[in-house]
Parts: sequence; structure tokens; C-alpha cells
Amino acid sequence: MKQGLKIAVIGGGSSYTPELVEGFIRDYGDLPVRELWLVDIEAGLNKLNIVGELAKRMVAASGLPIDIHLTTDRRQAIRGADFVSTQMRIGMLEARVRDETIPLRHGVIGQETTGPGGMMKALRTIPVLLDICKDIKELAPQAWLLNFTNPAGMVTEAIHKYGGVRSIGLCNAPIGLIKLVSARYNTQPERIYAEFAGLNHLHWVTRIEVEGEDKLQELLENREQYAASNVPQHGWDPDFLRSLQALPSYYLKYYYLTDFMLQEQLNSTNKGGTRAEVVKRVEDELFKLYSDPQLKEKPKQLEQRGGAYYSEAAVNLMRSLHNGTNDIQTLNVPNRGTIDFLPDDACIEVNCVVTKNGPLPLPLTKIPQPVKGLMHAVKTYEQLAIEAAVNGDRALALQALAHHPLVPSVSTAKALLTEMLEANRDYLPRFFD
Amino acid sequence: MKQGLKIAVIGGGSSYTPELVEGFIRDYGDLPVRELWLVDIEAGLNKLNIVGELAKRMVAASGLPIDIHLTTDRRQAIRGADFVSTQMRIGMLEARVRDETIPLRHGVIGQETTGPGGMMKALRTIPVLLDICKDIKELAPQAWLLNFTNPAGMVTEAIHKYGGVRSIGLCNAPIGLIKLVSARYNTQPERIYAEFAGLNHLHWVTRIEVEGEDKLQELLENREQYAASNVPQHGWDPDFLRSLQALPSYYLKYYYLTDFMLQEQLNSTNKGGTRAEVVKRVEDELFKLYSDPQLKEKPKQLEQRGGAYYSEAAVNLMRSLHNGTNDIQTLNVPNRGTIDFLPDDACIEVNCVVTKNGPLPLPLTKIPQPVKGLMHAVKTYEQLAIEAAVNGDRALALQALAHHPLVPSVSTAKALLTEMLEANRDYLPRFFD
Amino acid sequence: MKQGLKIAVIGGGSSYTPELVEGFIRDYGDLPVRELWLVDIEAGLNKLNIVGELAKRMVAASGLPIDIHLTTDRRQAIRGADFVSTQMRIGMLEARVRDETIPLRHGVIGQETTGPGGMMKALRTIPVLLDICKDIKELAPQAWLLNFTNPAGMVTEAIHKYGGVRSIGLCNAPIGLIKLVSARYNTQPERIYAEFAGLNHLHWVTRIEVEGEDKLQELLENREQYAASNVPQHGWDPDFLRSLQALPSYYLKYYYLTDFMLQEQLNSTNKGGTRAEVVKRVEDELFKLYSDPQLKEKPKQLEQRGGAYYSEAAVNLMRSLHNGTNDIQTLNVPNRGTIDFLPDDACIEVNCVVTKNGPLPLPLTKIPQPVKGLMHAVKTYEQLAIEAAVNGDRALALQALAHHPLVPSVSTAKALLTEMLEANRDYLPRFFD
Amino acid sequence: MKQGLKIAVIGGGSSYTPELVEGFIRDYGDLPVRELWLVDIEAGLNKLNIVGELAKRMVAASGLPIDIHLTTDRRQAIRGADFVSTQMRIGMLEARVRDETIPLRHGVIGQETTGPGGMMKALRTIPVLLDICKDIKELAPQAWLLNFTNPAGMVTEAIHKYGGVRSIGLCNAPIGLIKLVSARYNTQPERIYAEFAGLNHLHWVTRIEVEGEDKLQELLENREQYAASNVPQHGWDPDFLRSLQALPSYYLKYYYLTDFMLQEQLNSTNKGGTRAEVVKRVEDELFKLYSDPQLKEKPKQLEQRGGAYYSEAAVNLMRSLHNGTNDIQTLNVPNRGTIDFLPDDACIEVNCVVTKNGPLPLPLTKIPQPVKGLMHAVKTYEQLAIEAAVNGDRALALQALAHHPLVPSVSTAKALLTEMLEANRDYLPRFFD
Repeated sequence: MKQGLKIAVIGGGSSYTPELVEGFIRDYGDLPVRELWLVDIEAGLNKLNIVGELAKRMVAASGLPIDIHLTTDRRQAIRGADFVSTQMRIGMLEARVRDETIPLRHGVIGQETTGPGGMMKALRTIPVLLDICKDIKELAPQAWLLNFTNPAGMVTEAIHKYGGVRSIGLCNAPIGLIKLVSARYNTQPERIYAEFAGLNHLHWVTRIEVEGEDKLQELLENREQYAASNVPQHGWDPDFLRSLQALPSYYLKYYYLTDFMLQEQLNSTNKGGTRAEVVKRVEDELFKLYSDPQLKEKPKQLEQRGGAYYSEAAVNLMRSLHNGTNDIQTLNVPNRGTIDFLPDDACIEVNCVVTKNGPLPLPLTKIPQPVKGLMHAVKTYEQLAIEAAVNGDRALALQALAHHPLVPSVSTAKALLTEMLEANRDYLPRFFD
Repeated sequence: MKQGLKIAVIGGGSSYTPELVEGFIRDYGDLPVRELWLVDIEAGLNKLNIVGELAKRMVAASGLPIDIHLTTDRRQAIRGADFVSTQMRIGMLEARVRDETIPLRHGVIGQETTGPGGMMKALRTIPVLLDICKDIKELAPQAWLLNFTNPAGMVTEAIHKYGGVRSIGLCNAPIGLIKLVSARYNTQPERIYAEFAGLNHLHWVTRIEVEGEDKLQELLENREQYAASNVPQHGWDPDFLRSLQALPSYYLKYYYLTDFMLQEQLNSTNKGGTRAEVVKRVEDELFKLYSDPQLKEKPKQLEQRGGAYYSEAAVNLMRSLHNGTNDIQTLNVPNRGTIDFLPDDACIEVNCVVTKNGPLPLPLTKIPQPVKGLMHAVKTYEQLAIEAAVNGDRALALQALAHHPLVPSVSTAKALLTEMLEANRDYLPRFFD
Repeated sequence: MKQGLKIAVIGGGSSYTPELVEGFIRDYGDLPVRELWLVDIEAGLNKLNIVGELAKRMVAASGLPIDIHLTTDRRQAIRGADFVSTQMRIGMLEARVRDETIPLRHGVIGQETTGPGGMMKALRTIPVLLDICKDIKELAPQAWLLNFTNPAGMVTEAIHKYGGVRSIGLCNAPIGLIKLVSARYNTQPERIYAEFAGLNHLHWVTRIEVEGEDKLQELLENREQYAASNVPQHGWDPDFLRSLQALPSYYLKYYYLTDFMLQEQLNSTNKGGTRAEVVKRVEDELFKLYSDPQLKEKPKQLEQRGGAYYSEAAVNLMRSLHNGTNDIQTLNVPNRGTIDFLPDDACIEVNCVVTKNGPLPLPLTKIPQPVKGLMHAVKTYEQLAIEAAVNGDRALALQALAHHPLVPSVSTAKALLTEMLEANRDYLPRFFD
Repeated sequence: MKQGLKIAVIGGGSSYTPELVEGFIRDYGDLPVRELWLVDIEAGLNKLNIVGELAKRMVAASGLPIDIHLTTDRRQAIRGADFVSTQMRIGMLEARVRDETIPLRHGVIGQETTGPGGMMKALRTIPVLLDICKDIKELAPQAWLLNFTNPAGMVTEAIHKYGGVRSIGLCNAPIGLIKLVSARYNTQPERIYAEFAGLNHLHWVTRIEVEGEDKLQELLENREQYAASNVPQHGWDPDFLRSLQALPSYYLKYYYLTDFMLQEQLNSTNKGGTRAEVVKRVEDELFKLYSDPQLKEKPKQLEQRGGAYYSEAAVNLMRSLHNGTNDIQTLNVPNRGTIDFLPDDACIEVNCVVTKNGPLPLPLTKIPQPVKGLMHAVKTYEQLAIEAAVNGDRALALQALAHHPLVPSVSTAKALLTEMLEANRDYLPRFFD
């Protein structure tokens, strides 16, 4: 007889794991986890042990009957799991450094999820996720695969098209926006309703209700606050927002403020610090903290890491799937007519009702007319890149890159592609067989 | 009793007019023109007279019973017309110089139909065309308005949405491609069948049959010929074309080779010659030729002017509409489902069967997957710019420009818009009332 | 300062009203009704007073501060209302008798919501509802109009197209199915999730989960139970249901078992009792009960009246709209892409998330392939009949009837239409001016 | 070296063959047929010889170098063919008698292409056509399969979905309408343009131009002529046509005048003559004529056979495909968005431009709103019946029949299906293995 849930976390040695464990402890009543399997690769064994031991101490302190397993045997972890969650980085931070720096040398935005860097990450990551799907199909065919691995939209779409398992993509950005607005209005996150339209890392928020009152206009108009970094509209031109009638995702700055963002990246790289290098330092500090045998809870410092709320999003989703609560969450799911100009099988990021059988996307009440082309252009690139990743097809990869809105010409695309493929050769067997 | 057709040419003082007259003479059997009214504004009266007298000499030499009328009274010309054709430039070549140079100063492509320059031309032109439509609705409600005025796709779409008259947009590029291919294969243009997919100045040719044989692959692959300027594939990267499986319009170089084209524009401007200035010199020479009272035919030199085949396209279309020949021509027409991801009312440039009741777009047999996003992005910009033009709405104009694929940021868009609107103040009453 | 909600019930003298009052009392905590206005026409004043006095006694017994107002002044009742609900029958039971008997004389199903009878009811009712909308637009523009008036799908669609007010259509059939299944499985209605696809009185249930377990197959297969009238699958051929993979609405028997249902109607009419006449007797008994000054609660007998759960559905919906609870209810709403082959403005009956801004239809997870044509055919008829009602257009009414799946020929349609319009002359001013 | 075309006619012993041969002779200049292979089954060998010898005499009289081959070896006939045409009846006229009489006994229209009879014909015919497709794929992969075999729309759709060959469906009804109108207006068929919208044997004509003038209204209104059987509008109610604004196909009488047509069928059956039996007599007479060794041309009497113009349609289509003339013909082709509410892979009957690569459907300029539901309902039935035929699936066949607009109930559908399957057992191996 089944006594509780089995959960497998691929990339369990991640610095995010304590947040996830904290969530499982907090929500145990609604989500009775019996076994938590943290899986990682050999190269990550040291981190896995550090974070795993912290997890064990946290559970022990809670007094709950949750078994923590640490392993490099992915198949054992997956067998019979109810949920599989993935949070991993193929090629580790070294690959991220390359994703961020090679494009910059060609005068193109260097970012790990957006533009050429994001495409390289997708090419490395998608085949690994599809391998994981093979194991799930065989060993836990009823499991839900919750994918956080970036670029989450593309990876989730690839899984839907080629993985043959039940899967949902998640990002921390939507929950982050909710938290920001709730802080701004000094209310509970549950009292905020925001409607998201678009793709992962490319969404627009077209409705924000705070305690049942529409506050979008107020947020778009509030000029004096644009300088403050702790407000949702930080850094955007108020005239532009007002005529757009939507709040763009932070990642849209790479598209709307391309020249400015590029300059900023060049400046910070010249000062000797890509984002990857900053993250590396933060992680080192976190693992030092985690190693403390006295630590029995998630340290506050983790919240300053970029990925805050990732695990909260994951636990919320598992809880709703498990209980069929039919509540609304912002998720990455196949389009199937929700955005009428995108293909049915395109993954989009929108509000969904989470039923026991999975998420159902809610109809969009508004989609800003000006953004349709950009959204379609990025999705077109994504779909080409997914096919390139699955087939190891250079011609498709060239088409993807040449048609990416941030790439200024076919010749730049060609040069970039050649260099980036070569630099990632070890992680791209489908391209270099 | 009606004894033949009445045709009104708005912008009749254009240097293209002799080609049109030549066409009417050549096709008189199928298209019995009784009255040809050449209309122009006061400022163009001198040119109108020069070109009008040449037209009269051409007709006299032909011995055909066609009456040529020269006038500045547009309403008289339109009254009872069967066809109205427009070929005009609001603000004349001076405005074009500004369209081409202001964007360059902001590091953006400067071109009269593509990008910010094209948008300014649209803002100046659309209200004038809608005024002409008012006259047609009143004075010749059954007339066909054939629109050549650039940006032809946007202007035609504006007419369809707001003009209330029967209208078709035309461009010389499709017929030009046919002529190039027919020369390359040493056969008649009638033996070439090419399928066009896309928008005006933003199309891709996805099928080329020469005498019933598919030659697309051969044209895409023929590497040694890319250097030759008299071939369709001139200047494109063969690897890119082969994986795209389509021949892009010449104008697509502004999108696919942005950095290169921008550099070329900067170089030639520095050498003291925008395209507008080159055209001005060519036109001066043409009008000198036209003034010769001995000249009784279209001079060969006209063919070197960029707009070759414009008039051939026009005469072909009038002939097919008049006779209901159900033949196939490449035209700008409302989408109505032909390209499934674009709105029904978007004007597209595709092959059509020309019935007596107007053109019916043929279904596309192929549309390259990679180009969908770019096509949608440019159409999105076009639709916003049309609304801005009709309403004199700066906020919409900002959205249009900020979302144009060639504009690198919202701040550039804002600066450019401010400067260009100001520079065109005289021609933008809807913006400056 | 607003102290509670104002609710106007048009047709307040209906025998259903006590159920509604009971609901307001039960849910007062979530739905604080301050004023309840019961409106009826002069001819219904006697009933209004009987049912109104019972309502007052029920409220008094509850001790809640709800004011009951009885009036024939519709405008006073609507002014400033938060919710307007309608439950009325234009032409009263006499008109229903005609709706049920005239078609039978032509060999066609005689039913008050389905077929020619339903169309006559729509022709009588739609103009009256649109008049009510005029009052709401003027006097309570923010009010929600909850429409129970049959044929509810057509009436709601007409309101959406021509009424200019916020409106939702409701039916008791979906909630009735849920109650039947919950009784069958001995569980709470809240533990049942059923997915409805289709139109009002023309839906199919494609998923039934009981406490999270899929029971559709079991319900379709359970052959021995088909004879029992208290099960959802009562009377259907089990082979047919199994290959259909959906449970049809009771009303679909008029389409799937036309010959049998027609015979049954003819038999019962011959025995001297149409459905209308039966209902009349039940109503007379109810009002006798209601008149008892000792009665202070809804009598049990009301539940045997066909319309059980109507008021429960209404109170649930008001509560969710008022509180923005984002829960799921089965409602009649504009299609907007949910059923891809029906027009966007077609009203459909599907599960919706009820947000503060109104219902958002959930995507259908399944729609049985075989039923698409029938669904489209009935919706086509409905849309034609709505236009006929709004414009008093006989030609459209003929097209509607001639294309109704239950009408065997154009000549029958013509004869039926002539006779039915004449019989309803008093209620069809748009047809007889 | 190829010296001309090879054509294979499956069912070459048909009485229509002389018309086809006449067409090949007449159009030899545009369609140089070198080999004509007439194929039939053993049971049809006698007819094949009679009609084949007549064909040889016709060719000899023409003096053209066309070789006629008579054979029962289908594969030999197909090998290397340019065109394969099919005109056959699985089960011969005996099966047709059953298709027409069994439904009548259940009170349902008995017709060989419409309703239950048409479904049985489809179940018998589709597997045979798919077998022929296997041969074509192997032996003549570039051939065009022109399908006349009824129900032509369903058979063609099945070939498109499962046959893997290039195929087009043809019917003589559209060309017949053109001839009728040209006779009515005393002009050439080439001067008529009619727009067809719908399915095979279920189309509506929404535009009729005679010498460039719109005559639809005149044809719909002309009341005094409805009695005359040689006009297109014969037998329709003028009020109905006028409000429909379209001329329905003759076959639509089975839907629009169901009660009348049923009575007529019952009467004529009682008088001892189904349509099948009438046809049988006509055929016997034709073959007697064909046997005359003096006959060297198509006899006039053939035109009185129902299928007049079938062969003219076929020869026209082959000629256009061979020469890429881009002319317009009414054909059965996959929908692909032409009728927006039908699936992309549904076969529809519409005007097409016949290019060298096959037909491209023209956009419909009008589709009568009232007919959408009926069109969708019949197409739904067709798609279910195709799947039933391909898979020998009784459950799908039941769904198809139960949802057919002419079948009054599930129980009638079930009884009919059982009886008809049994009666066709010899021709339905997929159902009876």
C-alpha cells in the first residue's frame, strides 16, 4: 500500500535544494512526501553530499517521516516516482561563461537564456532531458516531470514534442512579480491576480489586480518610482509602458533596450565579471554555509540568489496536481489555440487552472497588439533551435540564429554559430558524430 | 453609350508615365482606353506638361483614338473613371532625402520603404490616399484603384480598411524577378511560374518553374554566380539560401544583412550621395529627354530607373480585370486566411487569380518556417503605423517604431520619432493640429 | 456608503423564487444581499404577491437584514442593482402549449426549447430581454445579468451580441448531472468534476471524475442500470454510448432518438397531457402551498418541479462573481476559440473559471469527433433564429427552420413557420408591424 | 525516349468509356495520348471487350497513333502510367440495388451516394481504391490518380489520407450545371463562371456569371420556370432559394425535401423500379449499340445516361495538368483552410486553379451562413465512415450512421447497419475477418 509520495530531483546537488526541502516540510499536510531522491552526476557528488546532509538535518529538525536519498543512479531515483523535477546545468558554470562571452565578442547580447547563449544552452540541454524522459517513460510512466531547466520554455516544448512524458515547465519570474507587487501594496501574494501573456522569459503582464482592484494603470503611470529597483516597472520608459498597456518581463530589456543592455554587458565584462562569474562566487559562499553541521534550515542568503521562489513554485504545483485543487498558476504549457497566431504545439507561459490531469491554460483576456510580431519571431527561433538540438542539424541552427531578433545579420549568425558549436563540442554529440 | 475606358493617373507627371502610355498603346486591342487623364498638383505642373506632351505625341504616332487630358483638377479626372492609378510622392524627393538620412544618424537603416523611413513615408501618404478614396467613392464608385504608391503594402491595407473603394496594390519587384529568371534561362516571361509568399518588399519566392521544370534548387545552389549582379540570387550566402529553401526579396537584405547594408549606406552618404540624390539626377536627365519634341516613344533610358515594369504590371492588371481572364498575377491583397498566422485584414503580396470581381489569392504551397516570425513582426509594425497615420497618434507611432525589427531600442525609437515627425511637420496635419 | 448588494429578479413571481430566497439566506455570509427586488408584470401580480409574502416570511424567520421589495416597476428594481436575474415566460403557459402542440401536428418534435417550439420561444423572448438590457445599460451599467430564460443559450447569445450589458447564461442541467452522479457514488457534489462540451441543452459530458478517479467508462458501460431512471445514462443504448465515449445531455434524445421521442409525445398528447399541462397542474399546487401563512421555508415539493437547482446555480454564480473566487462552473458564454469550428461570438455551454471580471472558458480536453456536425448544425440554426428575432425577418426564420436537423423539409418548415408565427402574433411585434 | 502519355483506366469496361475515347481524340493536340490501357476484372471481361473494340474502331477512324490495350492485369496497365483514372462499382449493379432498397425498408432515403446507401458504397469501395494506390505508389509514383468512383468526395479523401499518391476527385455535376446555364442563356460554356462551395454531391452555387454579368439573382427569382426540368433551379421553392441566395446541388433535395423524396422513392420502388434497375436497362441497350461493328463513334444515347460529362471533365483535367495551363475547374481537393470550419484534410468540392503541380483551391467569395451546419454534419459523417472503411470498425460505422442527418435515430442506425453490413459481407473483408 502506498504511504506517501516519491519525488526525484535531477540536479539535486543544486544550491536551490534547501528551499525545496523547506517547501516539502512546510506543505507536508497537503503533499505527504515519503521519499525524496536527490540525484546528481559524479562531477557534482561533493555538492550533492553537502546539500544532501543539510536536507537531512532540516528534515530531522521537522520531525517528519521523509526519507532523503542521495545517489548518482538516476534510474533508481526515477523508478516509481510521482514527481520528477529537474534543475541542472549541462557543462556547469564554465559553459555559462562561454554562453555569455562569445556573443559579446560579435557585438551580440550574451545571456544564458536569451539570444545565442540561450540557444547554445538549449542545444546542450535538450538531448539530456530527452534521455531522462526515456527513463521516466520506462520506470515511472505516470510521473509528472516538472522542468525548471533553462531555457525552460524551449526545453519543455522539446519534452512535449519528443519526450513522451507528462511535463510542465516552470519559472520563478511570475511568482517573483507577484511578490514584488504584494510588497509594493503591502498585502498577501494570494490577494494579487496577474495575467501573463507570452513565452518563458518573454511575457507581458496585461492585468494586475490587488485585492480585486485593477492596479495596472497605476503601476504603468507611476513615474517617480521608475528609479527604484524594488518595483516591477523598474527601468522602463513610462511613455512606452503607458502606450503599451502592459508590464514587460525583465528579460524583455534585451529586446527593447538592446543597445543599452549590450553596452552594460560589455562594461561589466571589461570590469572582469560576467553574470556567470558573479553567480559562481555566490554559490561558493552558499555551499560554505551549507557545510556547517549546525545549520538546520534554509539560510536567508539563498534568497539573494537569482532563482528565488523556484522551489516555492515547484511545491505549489506538486501540491495542486496531487490534490486537484483547480487553482490558478502561471506555467509553461502547449499553446493549443490560446495564442491564436502561434502553433498548437508551441510552449507558452500563461495562467493555467491546475487540474488533477494537468494544467489547462486560461483564455487571455488581452494581448497587446504591438508585441505579437516579437512573440512570434522568438517562438519561430525557438522551434527551429529545438529541431536543431534534437537532430544535431547545423542548417537549422543557422536558420534559427539568423532569424533571431537580436542577431544583426546572416554573416554574424554564421560566424557565431561556428564558434559556439566548436566551443561546446564536448556537450554536443549529435552535432559532432 | 460607352465607347471605351476612362483612366485617371494621379501623379501623372511622373517619369514613369511614358511606359504606361506605351502599354496602353500596345494592349489597345484588349484594353480599349478612350480617355487618359493625367493629374498632378500645381507644384508638378511643369513635369506634367512635359510628360503629357510626350504622351500625346506617342498616341498620335500610334494612330489610336485615345484622348490625353492634362489637369490639376483631380475630381474631374476621377469622375466616371474605370481605373484610377496612383504614383506619387508626398513631399517630393526632399522628403525622401530626409527619410533616408535621419535614421542613419541614429545608426538605423535609412530607406524609403523599409524601416523608419518607410514609416514616415506611410504617415505622409496614407491620409492623402484616403482623401483620393473619398473622391472615388463619390465620383466613380465602381472604379478600381490600382495603388503603386509606396510603401505599397501599407498604403493598400489602409485603403482596404478605411477607403471604402475597390483597390489592389502593385509592385514591380515580382515582375522584375520573372524577367531576371527568364533572361537567365533564355525563355519567355510567360514560361516562368514563381510563387511569392509574404508582404510587399518582404516576400520570399518558394517555387520557380521554368517551362514547367522546377529550378528553385538550381538557383539556390549555383554558387559561382552569386557575384554576378544580373542574377536573382546576387549577394546572398549560398549556405543560408540552401537551408532556407527560398529566394528572398532584394529588400530583405535590410533585415538579413543589416550591419553590412547599414555600413554601405553610411559609406555612400559620406561620399555625398543618398539613393534619393541619385534618383534626382536620373529624373532630371529623363525630363530633358522627354522635352524633345521629336521624341515619340518611351526612351530606353527609362528602363534603368529603379521602377522598371511598374507600368507593365499596371496595364496587365487592368487588362485582366476588364476581360475577366482569370490569369495569375502577384498582387497586394487582403490576407483572409491565406497566411494563417496573420490577421484576415492584413495586406499580403501573393499570387492571385484576377477575376472580373477582383483578385483571389491562391493558397501558398509552401511557406518557409524560419521566416514566419519576421513576417509577423513587420506586419505588426505596419498595422500599428497605419493606425498611427489614420489617427495622427504618436503613442501608436512609438509602439510601431519600437517594435520594428530594425530599431535597436525604445530610446532610439523615441528619439527618431521625435526628430522625424518634426522634420515632416508640413505633411502631417493629423499629428500637428 | 454601500452596505450590501441589490438584486433584481425579473419574473420574480415564478414558483422557483423560494429556492432563490433560501439560497440567499444560506449564503448570506459570502453574498450579503441587502435588497431583493421581485418584479413581475401586471398579469402576474397575484402570483408575485403570494410568492413575495412567502419570501418575506422566510427572511423574517432567518433574522437577516434583507429587504424584500415587490413591484411591477422594472426600472425601479434595476436601478443600481448589482445583479439582475431573469426567469420568465413570454406568453405564459398558453404559449408553451402552442410551442409543444403545433409542431406535433406537422410530424415534428414539439418541445419548448428544442426545435420549432424553441425557436418560437426565442422569437418571443429575445426582444423582451433586449428591452431589459436597455434599462440595465441606463440604470445599472455595472450589473451582471444572469439569464435563466429559455432557450438560455440563444437568449444569452442575443444579449451578448445586441444587449450591451455583462451577461452570463445559466442552466440547471449541469448541476443536475453532478447531483445525480454524487448520489450514484454516495459522495459530495464538490467531489465530482465533470467536463461539459457543447451548447445549452445540447452538451456532451466527456469526463467524469469522482473523488479524483475517472468514472466515465464505468458510467458508459454499466448496462444493467440503463433501465433505472435515477442514473445519468438512463435510456441510452450502451453500445452507442461506448463508441461515443461521452454522456449526452437528456435533451439530445430529441436528436438521437427522434422517432421514439416523437411517438412518445404523440401518445401523451393523445392521452390529453402535454408537458405544459402537467407543469400547470404542478404550479397550481405549489402556489396553493405558498399561500399558507404558516409556511416559512421552501416546501419540499418544489424539488419535483423540473427546474430543480436553477436557483442554486444562480446563487453560486453571484457568490463567485462577488468574491472573485476563481472556481469552476458550467456556464453559457461566448465561444472565442474554445470550440474551434464555431464562430467566436457563438454562445457555448462549457466549464468556466469565474473571475471577478466574469467567466473564462476552460479549454476542452476532449470533444467527440462524431458530434461536431450536429453541434454546428444546431448553432447555425440558433444564429439564424437570433437574427430573425432581432429583425423580425421571416426569410431568416425560414432559413433557420429549414436547416434545423429536426425539420424534414423546406415545405414543412414553411408551413410550420406560417402557422406558428400567426399563433404568436400578439408576442411578435417585430414580425407583424 | 518518351513519345506521349500512358493512361490507365480502371473499370475500363464501363459504358462511359466511349466518351473518354472521344475526348482523347478531340484533344489529341494538347494531350498526346500514346497508350490507353482499359482494365477490368474477370467478371467484366465481356463488357471490356465490347467497349474496347469500339474504342479501337474510334481511334482507327481518327487516324491518330493511340494504342488501345485491353487487360485484366491492373499492374501492367498502371506501370509507368502518367494518369490513372477509376470508374468502377464494387459489387456491380446488384450492390446498388441493395444500397437503394434496404434503407427504404427502414424509412430512410435509399440512394447510392447519399445516406446509408452511400456509406455502404464507401465501405465497399475505399479498400479497393487503397489497393490500387499501392500499385500506383510502386509502379507509377508520379502518376495522377483521377477518381470518379462514387462517393467521389469520400473516396478521394480516403486516398489523400491513406493512399500516398497524387489524386484528384471529379464529378460531372459542376460541368453539368455549366452546360445547363449555357443552354439557358444560349452562350458557350466557356462564357459561364460559377462558384461552387461545399462537398461532393453537397455543394451550393453562390455566383453565376454569364458573359461577365451576374445572373444569380435572375436564376433564383425566375418563378415561372421552376416547373421546367431543363433549368438549374428545377423543383426548388423560390422563396427558399431567394432567402438562401444560392443554388443547391440536385443531391441536396435528399436533405431539403427529405419527406417528398422519400415518398417518391417508395412510390417508384413499389412500381417496380429502383434507379439501379433503370440504369441496368439503359446499360444493356448501350452495350447492344456498342457491339455493332459498324459503329465508330460515341452514340448519342450515351448522353442520356446519368453520368454525362464525366469523361469531358476527366480529359479537361488531364490536359490542364499536362500543360500547366492554370485554368479554373471544379474539383474535389483537400480543404486546407478554404472552408474555415472544416478540418484541413477534409475533401471539399470547389473551384481550383489547375497548376502543373496540381489543383490549388480558390478562396470562396461567399458561403451561405445557413448551410454551414449541414455541410459540417455531412463531412463529420464522411470522416467517420472513411475511418470505419479503412479499419473495418463497426463502432465507428455506427457513429457515422447515427450522426447522419438523414437517419432518424440511433436504433434505426443500428438496425440498418447490421442489415447492410450483412448484405455486403462478400465485399467487406475488413469487417468480417
